[in-house]
Amino acid sequence: MFKVRTDLALENQEQLRQEDSKMQGIMVEESVEEALHLHTTIVKIVSEKGAQSLGKPQGTYITMETQKLLGSDATFHHAFSKKLALHLRTLIGDKQSILVVGLGNREITPDSLGPRVIQNLQVNRHFAEEKDQLVLSGLAPGVMAQTGMETMEIIRGVVEMTKPDIVMAVDALAARSMSRVNTTIQLTDTGINPGSGVMNNRHGLNKETLGVPVIGIGVPTVVDAASIVHDAVVPFLEGLDVETREELLEDVLTPELRYMFVTPKDIDEVVAGIGQTIAEALNRLILPKMG
Amino acid sequence: MFKVRTDLALENQEQLRQEDSKMQGIMVEESVEEALHLHTTIVKIVSEKGAQSLGKPQGTYITMETQKLLGSDATFHHAFSKKLALHLRTLIGDKQSILVVGLGNREITPDSLGPRVIQNLQVNRHFAEEKDQLVLSGLAPGVMAQTGMETMEIIRGVVEMTKPDIVMAVDALAARSMSRVNTTIQLTDTGINPGSGVMNNRHGLNKETLGVPVIGIGVPTVVDAASIVHDAVVPFLEGLDVETREELLEDVLTPELRYMFVTPKDIDEVVAGIGQTIAEALNRLILPKMG
Amino acid sequence: MFKVRTDLALENQEQLRQEDSKMQGIMVEESVEEALHLHTTIVKIVSEKGAQSLGKPQGTYITMETQKLLGSDATFHHAFSKKLALHLRTLIGDKQSILVVGLGNREITPDSLGPRVIQNLQVNRHFAEEKDQLVLSGLAPGVMAQTGMETMEIIRGVVEMTKPDIVMAVDALAARSMSRVNTTIQLTDTGINPGSGVMNNRHGLNKETLGVPVIGIGVPTVVDAASIVHDAVVPFLEGLDVETREELLEDVLTPELRYMFVTPKDIDEVVAGIGQTIAEALNRLILPKMG
Amino acid sequence: MFKVRTDLALENQEQLRQEDSKMQGIMVEESVEEALHLHTTIVKIVSEKGAQSLGKPQGTYITMETQKLLGSDATFHHAFSKKLALHLRTLIGDKQSILVVGLGNREITPDSLGPRVIQNLQVNRHFAEEKDQLVLSGLAPGVMAQTGMETMEIIRGVVEMTKPDIVMAVDALAARSMSRVNTTIQLTDTGINPGSGVMNNRHGLNKETLGVPVIGIGVPTVVDAASIVHDAVVPFLEGLDVETREELLEDVLTPELRYMFVTPKDIDEVVAGIGQTIAEALNRLILPKMG
Repeated sequence: MFKVRTDLALENQEQLRQEDSKMQGIMVEESVEEALHLHTTIVKIVSEKGAQSLGKPQGTYITMETQKLLGSDATFHHAFSKKLALHLRTLIGDKQSILVVGLGNREITPDSLGPRVIQNLQVNRHFAEEKDQLVLSGLAPGVMAQTGMETMEIIRGVVEMTKPDIVMAVDALAARSMSRVNTTIQLTDTGINPGSGVMNNRHGLNKETLGVPVIGIGVPTVVDAASIVHDAVVPFLEGLDVETREELLEDVLTPELRYMFVTPKDIDEVVAGIGQTIAEALNRLILPKMG
Repeated sequence: MFKVRTDLALENQEQLRQEDSKMQGIMVEESVEEALHLHTTIVKIVSEKGAQSLGKPQGTYITMETQKLLGSDATFHHAFSKKLALHLRTLIGDKQSILVVGLGNREITPDSLGPRVIQNLQVNRHFAEEKDQLVLSGLAPGVMAQTGMETMEIIRGVVEMTKPDIVMAVDALAARSMSRVNTTIQLTDTGINPGSGVMNNRHGLNKETLGVPVIGIGVPTVVDAASIVHDAVVPFLEGLDVETREELLEDVLTPELRYMFVTPKDIDEVVAGIGQTIAEALNRLILPKMG
Repeated sequence: MFKVRTDLALENQEQLRQEDSKMQGIMVEESVEEALHLHTTIVKIVSEKGAQSLGKPQGTYITMETQKLLGSDATFHHAFSKKLALHLRTLIGDKQSILVVGLGNREITPDSLGPRVIQNLQVNRHFAEEKDQLVLSGLAPGVMAQTGMETMEIIRGVVEMTKPDIVMAVDALAARSMSRVNTTIQLTDTGINPGSGVMNNRHGLNKETLGVPVIGIGVPTVVDAASIVHDAVVPFLEGLDVETREELLEDVLTPELRYMFVTPKDIDEVVAGIGQTIAEALNRLILPKMG
Repeated sequence: MFKVRTDLALENQEQLRQEDSKMQGIMVEESVEEALHLHTTIVKIVSEKGAQSLGKPQGTYITMETQKLLGSDATFHHAFSKKLALHLRTLIGDKQSILVVGLGNREITPDSLGPRVIQNLQVNRHFAEEKDQLVLSGLAPGVMAQTGMETMEIIRGVVEMTKPDIVMAVDALAARSMSRVNTTIQLTDTGINPGSGVMNNRHGLNKETLGVPVIGIGVPTVVDAASIVHDAVVPFLEGLDVETREELLEDVLTPELRYMFVTPKDIDEVVAGIGQTIAEALNRLILPKMG
């Protein structure tokens, strides 16, 4: 049967009532920054019950939302990258060497966010000297259809060889709602979950699989075509019995829909812009004066 | 109100009953080539009445359909390009110098078909010598958002200066049905109609606007997101009165849907393949031995 | 015989003695801007004699030189683009509608400067309204090997159809000296001369060929391989008779050298950076507040 | 002092007299294939003395030379890829799982050969089933300036995790002579040597560093600008004493020459073509029917 798919903790959380959230060990904190038209939500899942009801691992999920990510206002993008760098610093804590991994397929526009971040990253590990500064390295490993290898295998091999303290994995996600596409960045200390990403990564990237903490940086760049059709049709199914509903849904959710995604017409330009902004935030981490 | 949008004459024609077609001056001829899994339909609109009922100008529309265009089988693509070249030769007639125009925005994957054809075109106008052979030139003018100029203005200027006998305009189209996306090529001697193309060309390219005959070569590479939602919802509206239907449709066909399109996940690769195949067909025109 | 090739008036002028310059109607004005490490030379050729001795048409040649163009310092590039915009405003005078033409082949990195400028240009002709503001349109016509048409034909056709007051043509040039590569921008009101550019444009673009004034914006991105070898060998030929010199030169200046150019290892990145900076200067022209 | 740089064993071997070669444990075997205009030289270095006099490790070096690699004749490229596959099969022996590594920087055209091969590779490791067939995986790790990591570290990590029997490393090389550029492919079972490649890999990739045998596939795509100048000037230095020679050479071999390379004007197109041909040869390895 059709499974509604979203990689955003926020979209799951919104479906719970507020009282339920608290009882289940889900803490939510919201703030608004007028100047940047920025709405930030920090969801902390602190119990196994909360994890189950949101379908996400325990941990912190920071969601930054702003329509201005869609535009090309350079002043906004600089200011936004500073905010983003602040949140990243909090998640990094006292870790000193960071491996940034750009997930996704650079040949598929809405999946190319990760590789584009790596393209704009200013790595310094190869000439870093002082012990006390942050050190960046970066890798765009490609996807399994390109490499024949699980992305997790590649990254784990590189982690074991180069010994970063922490991994940051940037990935393009699928959102539930079109209004979230290219307007939202989700940061989380729980890594990348199995089955997420535009092209569905099979294995997760997290402390269990890589041996070091993993911060996930995700931006929804598509909505599954099936999600859109599902949502349009569901209101018409109210009042019908379960069996009839499922039959009707199956009729409209054709198999070919699964190979399609819905994406804005200017996706190339927007993904390029957001990729630069995330790279700028990461580059700020090693440039204390700019921060 | 929502207007179902398709650039394929075939999709309009399918909605008419066969008897009606004949009466209205629409002639349809179908053929199947098993080896290529190729289904070819030639629709000739020979009366004004037929033009009105299909919403397309009078002329010939050749539609070649095959699922194999989606794949990367080199042998198929070569064989298909030969077929395509044959149809193009028929439409060209005795014209000798051809300007190929690749419409669309090369920075937007599903709209980049035209520019990719030009990239693979082997032009010969600058060193053509013999009077009796075919002569090719090519141009990828970009779209109005890139140039600030109507595409028609640019092409008309180039036509007036370089005096081709005929223009061939390659464009990415929007289809009505997902099963047509990247599996169909439409050739027509009526040129490119206003409002067609992935990004909506404002003015048409045809004998009236350019002063020379225009052959349109179109491939649907997207479906409008609104079309998909519309089709999924329509069956549930049967039996309702017109007013209620329109209200319900307006609810699901949100304005943001208009800025979205639905496209297969491997669009980059498929568009690259089809662009090469169309270019190969055009290159065959000036290489009689290969034809 | 080998003909030393340079597209920079400055490089020709340097070979004349200062007194000779004045006598021949060549006026030279230099200035230095410490903050930008910028050295600007304005050469005005005001007599036919001067034109002959420099091998360039009468007119103004503004050469801006700075090593900082090679780097990626965003603050510098913004400041430089302001200076560039000032010079362009002087050359434009009271003209109101500008067609920017990006010459060159986007598939050949050191020749791709022009197309990259167009890619970053913010055209406004299609929605310009007020009579008194500047209006930009843009075109990257490709090169003759791609189009089969003389670039001049394409541009003239577009000029006749869209009626700009003035054309600005951006082109990648060949320099004589490696130290000029990617560190120099030459602006001139004499247009683009025949035989210049990385790939040798056959016809010039100027008031005679296009019917409107043409401002040339050129950046040397390569040195001909033959030039480099020529210069290395020449000192060893001193004292030899002319015939022997020519024989020896012919030996080292092999035909295959003519198909080679010398270019810095990071040419892709540098050309991308300079292309953005020139586009930024052009975009400033229509944004009075930013100027 | 200036060190002549070449990555081709053949170019070193040519500088030895034939008798000397044999005595020193260097075996040379040449063959010509008229139809492909293909000249193949197999150099086997079987003694330490031979290794020293050629400055290359002991092993087999297969050099395939043909001017037709410069062109775009599809029939030739197919036929050539078959020959290449045959040589690769010999070098692979009974190894069953192959990791193909595309070295180099995809953003720098003449260095992008390796990444382009990976782009065209048809990997099958992720769905390979039968025990007895060849299994391909692929990785384009980027260069140290992009990743901050030694390329050797990345590959070694991936090798340890995914356990291929053998690594094939594709790299763009520097040649000594312009006539070798893009006309030569060198295969060797000695891997990639330190300091080779367009951009100078610091560490070698070989059995010592990776733990599995490494086959190097190299194509010269550039000549160092310094090499060209050196060769042009050297004939004029004959008869001078060593000190004077070195002084004069130092004068012409300026430091900025070191950051320049000489490359054909159509390098983008040629590198794309050769990248596809090498990928086709590798793809043939897992398609026994095509071989």
